[in-house]
Amino acid sequence: MINFNDIQTAQQRINAHINDTPVIQSAQLNHWLGHQIFFKAECLQKIGAFKARGGCNAVQVLCEKHAGINRVVANSSGNHAQAVAWSAAQFNIPATIYMPSFASKVKAQATRSYGAEVVLLDKRQQVDAAVATAAQEDGVFWIPPFNDDAVIAGQGTAALEALQQVNQDIDAVFAPCGGGGLISGSLVATRALQPKAQVIAVEPAAGDDAYRSFHSGEIQRLADAPNTFADGAMTLSVGEKTFAHIKQLDDFFVVDEAPMAYWTQWLQHLLKMHVEPTSAMTMDGVCQWLRGQMQPKKVLVILSGGNIDAQMMQRLWAEDQLTEVPNVQRFS
Amino acid sequence: MINFNDIQTAQQRINAHINDTPVIQSAQLNHWLGHQIFFKAECLQKIGAFKARGGCNAVQVLCEKHAGINRVVANSSGNHAQAVAWSAAQFNIPATIYMPSFASKVKAQATRSYGAEVVLLDKRQQVDAAVATAAQEDGVFWIPPFNDDAVIAGQGTAALEALQQVNQDIDAVFAPCGGGGLISGSLVATRALQPKAQVIAVEPAAGDDAYRSFHSGEIQRLADAPNTFADGAMTLSVGEKTFAHIKQLDDFFVVDEAPMAYWTQWLQHLLKMHVEPTSAMTMDGVCQWLRGQMQPKKVLVILSGGNIDAQMMQRLWAEDQLTEVPNVQRFS
Repeated sequence: MINFNDIQTAQQRINAHINDTPVIQSAQLNHWLGHQIFFKAECLQKIGAFKARGGCNAVQVLCEKHAGINRVVANSSGNHAQAVAWSAAQFNIPATIYMPSFASKVKAQATRSYGAEVVLLDKRQQVDAAVATAAQEDGVFWIPPFNDDAVIAGQGTAALEALQQVNQDIDAVFAPCGGGGLISGSLVATRALQPKAQVIAVEPAAGDDAYRSFHSGEIQRLADAPNTFADGAMTLSVGEKTFAHIKQLDDFFVVDEAPMAYWTQWLQHLLKMHVEPTSAMTMDGVCQWLRGQMQPKKVLVILSGGNIDAQMMQRLWAEDQLTEVPNVQRFS
Repeated sequence: MINFNDIQTAQQRINAHINDTPVIQSAQLNHWLGHQIFFKAECLQKIGAFKARGGCNAVQVLCEKHAGINRVVANSSGNHAQAVAWSAAQFNIPATIYMPSFASKVKAQATRSYGAEVVLLDKRQQVDAAVATAAQEDGVFWIPPFNDDAVIAGQGTAALEALQQVNQDIDAVFAPCGGGGLISGSLVATRALQPKAQVIAVEPAAGDDAYRSFHSGEIQRLADAPNTFADGAMTLSVGEKTFAHIKQLDDFFVVDEAPMAYWTQWLQHLLKMHVEPTSAMTMDGVCQWLRGQMQPKKVLVILSGGNIDAQMMQRLWAEDQLTEVPNVQRFS
């Protein structure tokens, strides 16, 4: 398991490559909720998501450990594809990304634009088989999306940086949980810097494997990818490495689809940022937690990213959610 | 007519009240266009639009000139309503905003949230009559949306600040033109700081009064509010004060509706910001201008705001525009 020192080392490694994203607040939202919410805007990160952090750290750790790196490879239909493509390009390492052909054109195109070779294959099983075969070659290294110490340490730099920026006592840190890299890194960083703060994960109710794993003490696995707005949290299960951290979380909330669309519209409107539903969903978890609090609280939310295709935007904005202003009791 | 000194004085007045908004770039967009575009992100300004600048300056100029200010009033269905409400609140001055009842609930609600009294009236003529009557009272002052020296000087601080932030030679500065406050202030600031840079306005083709005024040398007026995505540029005509500046612009482009939706989607996607169509439309004007340029250019675009209601978001995202990447020749 990684420790805080690994995250500090990761920060030193990646600092010159990544964006120093702001921590922002909405005075209006704070007023409505009666609590203070700090948002770490990782939607403004390189590639539009926190995953640039883990990718960038992992590629550098590989370079420190191995001499002859000919190529890095990854299998992904989403932000991890772009993160590995971008990270490899930072160090002039060729990258091949295996993607399912049903992945959005925008994401394949963005991955190519960072200089990676993109191989499209019809089925996810073919994608996974192709990357496994490729990684057996000498000098070719696979970068996993979350179940990897260097990736977890990299993701942890978002919370580390945010807590340094906020520079005051925080009551709770919230992040979404897909494979668990972001929440695991956030936990380690927060325990070191603010041991009194709770660290809490949020997951779509439609794909609640990590929530059930947290409560049962054993890794639970979904049979199929869930149908949810939160396309960054559709992972079938967490990994052994992330679960070792997830077990230690203070709490875990699941979120229905309606509040995801609601909070995506409101965060885009109030923060004026292109926040993706996987990030916005976290606010429903925050409200579930705040309902049990008697005093005004200070909460840090890691807004994981802002990569949304047009079909998703149409679905998210299909109904006007801006007619009812946020309050902690909504969706209770 | 205002001069550069008025803008510098405005900057000193409003500096402690407004947000220091960033100037951002998209490396990907620059690569696709073959030119460098700097975006001044006024969507991150107080009230979500540059208009906080003009409002804040105008309220302070009133306070400097008059002793007994009981109240400020304004008539608006949009960002100016919020700007005056917010600005008055900064100085503990009561504000009444007269709005047409067809204005969006979100905007009326936002205006109230800044502490202003909002009076809803059925027709725009009633709104205009009510504000005129109110302003006749002793100690009550009307803050106009654009045809006012203090407002123009305030809006000019956006370009002033952006040029200071960019701190290198710029070839052209673009801004949208509604009533003309923003483009007028931008012109004065740019002429002083970068006399070689062109200053160019952009307007919806559906409401091309300012474009026709620029070319004819006389103020032209629309009979009715145009039907356009660019709801921040629906003004029926520019004012005498703004037209004195607009006459001196280097060029003026009009934009069809299709490129407005296209550029709104692409700027939201690339910049990860909730950019309104009135701002995004400017990029089509930029491309029209770039088509005539033989060398790579550096362009500053003032992104005017990010206030968009849900109905507008639905219309803007109704068709997927992200399938064709931007280039200068698109829509030519």
